[in-house]
Amino acid sequence: MSTFTVKAFAAESTTADLKEMNIERRDTTPNDVEIEILYCGVCHSDLHTARNDWGGTMYPAVPGHEIVGRITKVGSDVSKFKVGDLAGVGCIVDSCGHCDSCKQDLEQYCLNGFTGTYNGKDKHLGGHTFGGYSQKVVVDANHVLKVPENLDLAAVAPLLCAGITTWSPLKHWNVGPGSKVAVVGLGGLGHMAIKLAKGLGAEVTLFSRTPGKTEDAKQLGADHVVISTDDTQMDSVKGKFDVIIDTVPYVHDVNPYVTTLNISGTLVLVGYLGGLEPILNTVPMILGRKSVAGSVIGGIAETQEMLDFCGEHNIVSEIEMINMQDINGAYERMLKSDVRYRFVIDMKSL
Amino acid sequence: MSTFTVKAFAAESTTADLKEMNIERRDTTPNDVEIEILYCGVCHSDLHTARNDWGGTMYPAVPGHEIVGRITKVGSDVSKFKVGDLAGVGCIVDSCGHCDSCKQDLEQYCLNGFTGTYNGKDKHLGGHTFGGYSQKVVVDANHVLKVPENLDLAAVAPLLCAGITTWSPLKHWNVGPGSKVAVVGLGGLGHMAIKLAKGLGAEVTLFSRTPGKTEDAKQLGADHVVISTDDTQMDSVKGKFDVIIDTVPYVHDVNPYVTTLNISGTLVLVGYLGGLEPILNTVPMILGRKSVAGSVIGGIAETQEMLDFCGEHNIVSEIEMINMQDINGAYERMLKSDVRYRFVIDMKSL
Repeated sequence: MSTFTVKAFAAESTTADLKEMNIERRDTTPNDVEIEILYCGVCHSDLHTARNDWGGTMYPAVPGHEIVGRITKVGSDVSKFKVGDLAGVGCIVDSCGHCDSCKQDLEQYCLNGFTGTYNGKDKHLGGHTFGGYSQKVVVDANHVLKVPENLDLAAVAPLLCAGITTWSPLKHWNVGPGSKVAVVGLGGLGHMAIKLAKGLGAEVTLFSRTPGKTEDAKQLGADHVVISTDDTQMDSVKGKFDVIIDTVPYVHDVNPYVTTLNISGTLVLVGYLGGLEPILNTVPMILGRKSVAGSVIGGIAETQEMLDFCGEHNIVSEIEMINMQDINGAYERMLKSDVRYRFVIDMKSL
Repeated sequence: MSTFTVKAFAAESTTADLKEMNIERRDTTPNDVEIEILYCGVCHSDLHTARNDWGGTMYPAVPGHEIVGRITKVGSDVSKFKVGDLAGVGCIVDSCGHCDSCKQDLEQYCLNGFTGTYNGKDKHLGGHTFGGYSQKVVVDANHVLKVPENLDLAAVAPLLCAGITTWSPLKHWNVGPGSKVAVVGLGGLGHMAIKLAKGLGAEVTLFSRTPGKTEDAKQLGADHVVISTDDTQMDSVKGKFDVIIDTVPYVHDVNPYVTTLNISGTLVLVGYLGGLEPILNTVPMILGRKSVAGSVIGGIAETQEMLDFCGEHNIVSEIEMINMQDINGAYERMLKSDVRYRFVIDMKSL
């Protein structure tokens, strides 16, 4: 298969800083589009993959799955896009298309495994996929999103992962006008959860461990902030929430949040993969028909729905723009939660 | 308030056997009906309450919340029943009627606390409520169920707790024709879960730790039995079930069952109140949008719906009839799971 060379930023080992290198992209097939990448958001998964925190990283690793760009080539069978169109690519660049999940537009749960935008199995070139820390990407057009023209493009990038990761559970658990939603954690995911839940018409509360984030949360649209370390404040919201989006990425006690769920409410974990410690107490779950659930990103159709919604409601991420060369420092700051609320790489710096 | 005396069987302390004693029932108020108890099912909660296993038992304790009888008196404001009608009483004899839960016919989640049929706070006489191990009971008519005439009345009694406890989550999580349902544990609750899920049109699988229950399960209506200690059998149902009703009443590992849930599936705990050990792993939950939930009994309207459904589909419990005087031996047998599948007391023995 013919290819062309583009510049990218890659980690070559678990401990190496990311640095510039050349990678190959396939030439556009009839079903593909070629995208010049304008902006790429920086997700915690990028850092975890670069450093092999979850195991399974294939090197060189080119992270990046919050991609906004412009179409530069269109395959002969593609009618959805034309050259010059804006385009978005999230976490999924391919899926089987025929399993029960794919048939329901749930590519994120593809039973044959979706192809990740990076560190996935590259069906075209062999080896593994390379993400958005690069000049261009070539993607099957069915897995490419249309991006509203009216939004700040750099600030759209994080919608492709942080946005859809919180949108999907909000929609699946029927959040709308009148819903009472709480968000645990105010980072990349949490700040999008606030904006999207608010956009959907919900009354939104942020759970925060410290009072320092109150003003920020309210500016983002939160109606209330509850300090989760303050028992009186926690008692005041007992039994209140229909849906809680828990974005905390490390092990933490979810039991206090479960007690703040309304009858039949659901706490959705979107950030923490691992064992629930301290152990989950079933008593409030059984006596209040409460659920603890998980959710990962979202399907392609649902991502498009979210982007369209954001276009209509003028919702974007809060970002700090960096140059590609600043990525290693940005990772260090992310580890200290020193970002409000998402780094986005200006790809022309590459 | 005027009262009358009836015979009952009661525990007078944590360690005492149940024995006959007299208790007082209130005279029928305008909203009440008086019921002559014909049959009373024997629930594990009866035993736990008699022995104060959960704490909070008030003595003398008269258990029994699976009551079938005939109306012997009707309050002046009651139009729903007439003398001679069949009647059922489950776990709930009163609720506030005005909280968000009650307004949604979810009396089992009454935010002001429903009044349990036994060991609840008696709003009329003070003290605590006495259950169905007695000759008669007087109950607010809005909390009394109509019992289909065509069913074996003794075998109807367990529907009032074991039946509704499994019916409510089956309905809440939308089980119907085409659903794939699994049931964990084959006791009083489990055997009803099989019958009701099958009645609703689902494909039903029993998870059992031993092959000994296979024939029984199939006779009850299960389409499949999976031996949960057999890894090959467990692998064969990975990702299969839309809903799992987990009736196991003691601490157990739910993680292997979570992996057998389909995308967006829910495991509902109805039997075990306590901490989930071993710890729950969020990875399959997040990567498959799976939920772990709890559910307790059901509301009055929903219980009526279930009884009507059972009347139409000729569904009753499998029972072993005992005399009131056999109750202490029956408790010992229940502790050894030596009952298929529910003891029911023939109350004329009292």
